[in-house]
Amino acid sequence: MQNNEWNVVFKIEGGPARTLSVPRGVSLLDAAKQADVAIDAPCSGNGTCGKCRIRVLEGTVEGEPGRHISGGDFAEGWRLACLSKPASDLTLLVPDTASAYKTRMKITDLRESRERAVFEKLREELAAQGYRHDSGLETLSLTLKEPALDDAMADRERLIRAVSDAAGETRVDFTLHALRKLPLVLREGAFSCTCVFRREAGRGILILDLAAGDAKPVIPGLAVDIGTTSVSMVLTDLRTGDLLAAGSAGNGQIRFGADVINRIIESTRPGGVERLRKAVTGECVNPLIREMCRSAGLEPEGIYRAAVAGNTTMTHLFMGVPAAHIRLEPYVPAFFESGVQTAASLGLEIHPDAEVVLAPGIGSYVGGDITAGVFSSGIYRQENPTLFIDLGTNGELVFGSADFLMACACSAGPAFEGGDISCGMRATDGAIEACRIDRESLEPALTIIGGEGQEPLGFCGSGLIDVIGELFRCEAINAKGKFIREGKRIRRDEWGIGSYVAVFAGEDGQELAITETDIDNFIRAKGAIFSAIRTMLAIVDFTIDAIAEVYVAGGIGSGINVEQAILIGMLPNLPVEQYHYIGNTSLSGAYAMVNSRGVCEKITGISRGITYLELSSHPSYMDEFVAACFLPHTDGSLFE
Amino acid sequence: MQNNEWNVVFKIEGGPARTLSVPRGVSLLDAAKQADVAIDAPCSGNGTCGKCRIRVLEGTVEGEPGRHISGGDFAEGWRLACLSKPASDLTLLVPDTASAYKTRMKITDLRESRERAVFEKLREELAAQGYRHDSGLETLSLTLKEPALDDAMADRERLIRAVSDAAGETRVDFTLHALRKLPLVLREGAFSCTCVFRREAGRGILILDLAAGDAKPVIPGLAVDIGTTSVSMVLTDLRTGDLLAAGSAGNGQIRFGADVINRIIESTRPGGVERLRKAVTGECVNPLIREMCRSAGLEPEGIYRAAVAGNTTMTHLFMGVPAAHIRLEPYVPAFFESGVQTAASLGLEIHPDAEVVLAPGIGSYVGGDITAGVFSSGIYRQENPTLFIDLGTNGELVFGSADFLMACACSAGPAFEGGDISCGMRATDGAIEACRIDRESLEPALTIIGGEGQEPLGFCGSGLIDVIGELFRCEAINAKGKFIREGKRIRRDEWGIGSYVAVFAGEDGQELAITETDIDNFIRAKGAIFSAIRTMLAIVDFTIDAIAEVYVAGGIGSGINVEQAILIGMLPNLPVEQYHYIGNTSLSGAYAMVNSRGVCEKITGISRGITYLELSSHPSYMDEFVAACFLPHTDGSLFE
Repeated sequence: MQNNEWNVVFKIEGGPARTLSVPRGVSLLDAAKQADVAIDAPCSGNGTCGKCRIRVLEGTVEGEPGRHISGGDFAEGWRLACLSKPASDLTLLVPDTASAYKTRMKITDLRESRERAVFEKLREELAAQGYRHDSGLETLSLTLKEPALDDAMADRERLIRAVSDAAGETRVDFTLHALRKLPLVLREGAFSCTCVFRREAGRGILILDLAAGDAKPVIPGLAVDIGTTSVSMVLTDLRTGDLLAAGSAGNGQIRFGADVINRIIESTRPGGVERLRKAVTGECVNPLIREMCRSAGLEPEGIYRAAVAGNTTMTHLFMGVPAAHIRLEPYVPAFFESGVQTAASLGLEIHPDAEVVLAPGIGSYVGGDITAGVFSSGIYRQENPTLFIDLGTNGELVFGSADFLMACACSAGPAFEGGDISCGMRATDGAIEACRIDRESLEPALTIIGGEGQEPLGFCGSGLIDVIGELFRCEAINAKGKFIREGKRIRRDEWGIGSYVAVFAGEDGQELAITETDIDNFIRAKGAIFSAIRTMLAIVDFTIDAIAEVYVAGGIGSGINVEQAILIGMLPNLPVEQYHYIGNTSLSGAYAMVNSRGVCEKITGISRGITYLELSSHPSYMDEFVAACFLPHTDGSLFE
Repeated sequence: MQNNEWNVVFKIEGGPARTLSVPRGVSLLDAAKQADVAIDAPCSGNGTCGKCRIRVLEGTVEGEPGRHISGGDFAEGWRLACLSKPASDLTLLVPDTASAYKTRMKITDLRESRERAVFEKLREELAAQGYRHDSGLETLSLTLKEPALDDAMADRERLIRAVSDAAGETRVDFTLHALRKLPLVLREGAFSCTCVFRREAGRGILILDLAAGDAKPVIPGLAVDIGTTSVSMVLTDLRTGDLLAAGSAGNGQIRFGADVINRIIESTRPGGVERLRKAVTGECVNPLIREMCRSAGLEPEGIYRAAVAGNTTMTHLFMGVPAAHIRLEPYVPAFFESGVQTAASLGLEIHPDAEVVLAPGIGSYVGGDITAGVFSSGIYRQENPTLFIDLGTNGELVFGSADFLMACACSAGPAFEGGDISCGMRATDGAIEACRIDRESLEPALTIIGGEGQEPLGFCGSGLIDVIGELFRCEAINAKGKFIREGKRIRRDEWGIGSYVAVFAGEDGQELAITETDIDNFIRAKGAIFSAIRTMLAIVDFTIDAIAEVYVAGGIGSGINVEQAILIGMLPNLPVEQYHYIGNTSLSGAYAMVNSRGVCEKITGISRGITYLELSSHPSYMDEFVAACFLPHTDGSLFE
């Protein structure tokens, strides 16, 4: 008897169980997606990343275990969900590590934050450029005449008259949110109250919120960077630009694939756009808002404005707009500029009438994260040719100055954010962000985010650059990234694939090893970046020597070791002092936008002037890429 | 052993069952409210209306049956929910007639509708006064240049440029709703599409919706009258003012009481405002929208604008704004004017960005239904003093002309809409809307809404006026409304309370009888109206003879028999030709508002000029009321 459908129970570690009927031949990874069970699959189910580990508690599966499952793990029932299909009814354990990687939130302690300095510096620069805190939001405290039988004016009209007089504006209106609070707030404060309102172009004043008495609240605003891998946010006081809270989380869309192409493909399935929208807004952004508000002692519905930056696919999915045509010739997105939307329409759980502005995109693969970065890096004001590199899941480049700007993207893949790397992770607690290796013993010295006593959990982008650079410098690997030395820390598996064990199991925690497959993925990522730089410069007839400054942005750690990155042929061979690591400029650009409508206008103006270059259509790009897929390059003279 | 809590199962006839644990001493009516089980209780649980009949299937209840339950019914387990408390675990049957009374919807056949003429006439008048169909909504069909590799402008910017050129407006923006449709609609129509947009003051054009190709759709708008007892609506084509559909339903809030005072009291309980908001919007307005759209072949989300009129309490609860202070001295509502709200914020299931405008109120008991009526009746343009009477659950009066307007309310109670009358009902199919009684035999001749073959189900307002007027004319009842004749159709119950059986059980259906209690309730209602007229005229120093015209509005049937209404002392003794029944002017005013922003401005201007009179504070009102609580009046000379 052949059964055509199996009952599969997903028991999520420390969470609920979900049950699904799975037809014969469907992988457990696809079944998990259907059941909305979060399983990491940055390689989108190709069996290459080894992240979609699940454990079979009851029943049997069919399919190869793949090289990521050791014999011991196999005996314990561990399998890769992408390579396994049910061969009976199943009960599966889905490790919490999967969801932790994506959605575990990190609230930054602002007193100790290294990010704080980035924002402080930006705030000073904005002030120097004449940008005021012109978010349009203001507060006003008032005491009204109490109503009486011979003065039975309704509450709304009573308050509107007082606000109109005090603010010198004849057009005053209420949001429903504020109106619903009005009668009780007025009486709670004996007809004294504080309004939060927004001045609207051509429409006067719109009252957003009310509090009893003379409340003088902060006016919280939210800046969001939606990365393909990570979501980062800051809360700021729109009156001053002060930081109120900061935090980050993995992008919950990761279970639908690590890169934008796989997200777009998922979005074209029935209900896909909405599923992806919820995975980022419902599972990441809203919970992180709640946590950040808790840490800052604020109410989410008291956030009155938000600015969001992200790449073109991320902003489409955040808006719930079909993204299918981004990847279909002629590569036309649904929008570059989003217009101003309300939080309620986007499902953002802040004040329902909060204005939400998105940084404008300029092409299918150069989005608002880059235009926000162009603004906050200041490249658009530079006298001399400057190169801006954003190392995210995609790599984007902007080259230019006050005179011209051009931008392009290259599909670096998720390696710089720890994706597609067997022991890769985001730059959060437990990530190895730097590494030195002893040339003789090959013993490593690791720097781990989270400091003293933090168990190493994986490599973030900067740590990967370091470990591969060090292995190359120590001549442990050759120009193709293959191991050419033996030793205690160098191992080969049954297929002969070499790896470097940075952390032995039990030494400081779980085993962390860099495999030749990881190195290969990484080399392709760095090759994509370097070849894109070469191609773009060639198009505008510049040489590498003409680059005056290089800005490196992205959430790949506290910064990268530039010498190491040059050594492996990722970044051009320029004096180290010309390089500047400027952090997450998508987030800092969003911070500038939420604080200032003038900044929003400026970024829109800048974005319209950037020339978008489609690298893939350029004949020399593929040759450049192939040449760059060596350590450091087939043309070694570029790195001498 | 004394049990302090009983398990009560409400089995709703033809619907689901709900179970609740009910503490000792709580009435089954209160328990039903808690369980959100709809049981009619227009008298709010005083045991007077006899409408909250439920049948005990299992278990025993304690409490008096009350005079509305006959011996036979009692034996079958029938009880009034308001008078009964559980004395054991219970299983109860809740008749569908209860919910039918409130929520059964009626879609009007426009071809046969008598209302159609009202709207046709209004449309002509509006045109004559120079009001165009200036709802701000327009459609535009366009064909765009298709994108190409060397023309990769995003869809939004491509369409905005084309609309901007075609409409001559530099500021063009998108709703999220339209943006989400954009990429698929454009490609479905080979880059030809039709936009529905709204011109916004100071903001340019906002695109609300899109359709592929050259669609030229109608632009549906919705007009809503939210009465305390009934909700009435029409759908109109905003390009022409044509009617597309009409319908009505009971207001689902009725289970919280028949009059506004009981609704306000309910609203002050925890979650009360939201419960009442949902009872009207979720249970009545949205389902009726769906039904009307189905009959007109439209999609609800394709309704682009709505106008709502209702009394002050109804508009507060529709908006979800606390109404508590309406009934507390100094009687100050939260708002007179609502501002423009979006459908999404109000939970109205039409286009989420549809503008929803509310007719402005002028006092706690004179609301937007009256200002809408002042507009559509045209009283504000009259040369001579005119009296406008709106007979709803409350009675409201406006007196004046182009020179002055004053308004007041009197708590007539729900009798004119069939509430608080044992066999009363709304003016819908099955309602007896007119009645003649033979002076000798007391045999009735009934006119029933729904025509030929329609079983009589109860009396609506106009039918009540007729039957009581006829009983008085036939000298079957005296000036106090007590029966003074005997006969086949006159009956007395065990307490000696007389009643007139208009329909015998089995004759044409269920028994329909008018009791002395009903007549008493009705006399108080008509007395409230007449005494309010007298008091208001006295305040402005007018006599009844000075009234040039009387407009009678309200949903009490196809019109009332004015001679009958004068005979019983409800309306002033003026020549019948000075009376004009003008239908539901709250609805026709809303219809004018949805079709024209100019009308909205006009109504706001009119409303600000109306003087609101608080009758209850006037010393002579109570004397006038007592004198008017006779048939026709203690001062018979007024009706000679």
